[in-house]
Amino acid sequence: MATIYGGVETGGTWCVCALGSGPGELLAEEQFPTASPPETLERIIDFFRAQPTPAAIGVGSFGPVDADPDSPSWGQVTTTPKPGWQRTAVASVIRDRLGVPVAFDTDVNAAALGEHRWGAGREVGSLCYLTVGTGIGAGLVIGGRPLRGLVHPEVGHLRIPHDRQRDPFPGSCPVHGDCWEGLAAGPALAARWNTRPEELPDDHPAWALEADYLAAGIVNIVLVVSPGRIIVGGGVLDHPPMIALTRRRVTELLAGYLETPLLGADIGSYIVPPALGDDAGVLGAIALARMLGSASSS
Amino acid sequence: MATIYGGVETGGTWCVCALGSGPGELLAEEQFPTASPPETLERIIDFFRAQPTPAAIGVGSFGPVDADPDSPSWGQVTTTPKPGWQRTAVASVIRDRLGVPVAFDTDVNAAALGEHRWGAGREVGSLCYLTVGTGIGAGLVIGGRPLRGLVHPEVGHLRIPHDRQRDPFPGSCPVHGDCWEGLAAGPALAARWNTRPEELPDDHPAWALEADYLAAGIVNIVLVVSPGRIIVGGGVLDHPPMIALTRRRVTELLAGYLETPLLGADIGSYIVPPALGDDAGVLGAIALARMLGSASSS
Repeated sequence: MATIYGGVETGGTWCVCALGSGPGELLAEEQFPTASPPETLERIIDFFRAQPTPAAIGVGSFGPVDADPDSPSWGQVTTTPKPGWQRTAVASVIRDRLGVPVAFDTDVNAAALGEHRWGAGREVGSLCYLTVGTGIGAGLVIGGRPLRGLVHPEVGHLRIPHDRQRDPFPGSCPVHGDCWEGLAAGPALAARWNTRPEELPDDHPAWALEADYLAAGIVNIVLVVSPGRIIVGGGVLDHPPMIALTRRRVTELLAGYLETPLLGADIGSYIVPPALGDDAGVLGAIALARMLGSASSS
Repeated sequence: MATIYGGVETGGTWCVCALGSGPGELLAEEQFPTASPPETLERIIDFFRAQPTPAAIGVGSFGPVDADPDSPSWGQVTTTPKPGWQRTAVASVIRDRLGVPVAFDTDVNAAALGEHRWGAGREVGSLCYLTVGTGIGAGLVIGGRPLRGLVHPEVGHLRIPHDRQRDPFPGSCPVHGDCWEGLAAGPALAARWNTRPEELPDDHPAWALEADYLAAGIVNIVLVVSPGRIIVGGGVLDHPPMIALTRRRVTELLAGYLETPLLGADIGSYIVPPALGDDAGVLGAIALARMLGSASSS
């Protein structure tokens, strides 16, 4: 029988726990709202206590996080604006209460790894997993591993052009105002147009402006890290016209400078939806746990 | 005796050739202006023909280039605006005329590798080498290797905020207008202020504006790829007040969101000048050649 691993995705809104070895091989899965830290951690621990003990657990958390295994604050959520979650120990609590090894990374790095291992990025050497919803986040897999460095990717706060004449909305990021997520995440759309984004009709100018902003950030990701594929999801990008509009604007903005069909006629094969759907994060967390197993046995 | 390698840096302005095994161990070095492709390639070949044959040659070229070893156009400069150099075969000509294995990458990826191996980035897991001069370019080393993906980093064309009220200059990039290098490379400074940048006094408002633009692009690199260190050079950044001004603006723009002293009080240890000076590129090209040797023997 395949070794059993645990996966936990603590997203900003939902928390997902799963036990198994990969897609189609889950023995149990549970989803609940991300509440206060003690309440959420208790439910995670309860989930695993009711199951056979996994060889390791992977945790993908909303960020910013400290994912440096050598840091004293490894496994914590750090400066998040999410109320009550600043400086919350997550990974060490799960490890200590359940007595199993725990791997820890951002939720989007986990999702990127899941899509790379089992989903829409199986054939590419590097990929970016981008989600645009209540915030904007991206995970990167390079050389088969989630990218960490000084910290980890935190693309929501990219600086992009903001044409204040066309769009006088000042931006909704509490820290940076008109950074990428301040202009283009769901709350920015809602505040700018004073309605729930899903109620804006497809021909509303909101969507063309949104595509301009999303394309500017995606172009920046392409120009810095040149991922082999970009996998895009989240509530805003799931809105029907958005992927097509965004692809077109990315091509227009790059203006043929990088000479590859994947940034021109074939951009539909470059900017693609996830294959694992809502399970990308928790499956990626299982992939993180599997990687921990193979790293410690090597 | 140490194995001897060749290094070639074909920069936009200067071409450097060297023979040896690393810093302090160069048997020969020559520098000449980058002229037309046939003239430049001939001088490179003449340089190596006058020397003992190296085990391999590394070439770092201005870009965009095709550095994918599996591509039919591997080793070419592709869509460069540099007159006469579009679609120029560089690496294959050197390989075929000299009969030695050739490794090929961008000039800035080579410089990043050189600084990582022997210079200002020896202790860090990943780094960005950024140069701001006649253009803006960056190389990245991640996991010990120069980063390539769909193409390679091409940060000069990042989209950054452009406050047209404060700075009505439309930007000087022939492809994108007010992209990063269109606003902040040497030619943009010269055109905006109608003088050679080195003649602008230190207290001229040009430098504060320049620091704002440089910081916006650096912040974007930090937020996408989170390098362990950023090594900055090139004619514009070498101007005395620029590094200090830029460091301060990076810290202000991030506003403490990423909680590490290296993006706050200790930013002087994060954004640093190169240790190899003008030799970073050609030494990095030697490092590329050494890597080719170790890859083919493994």
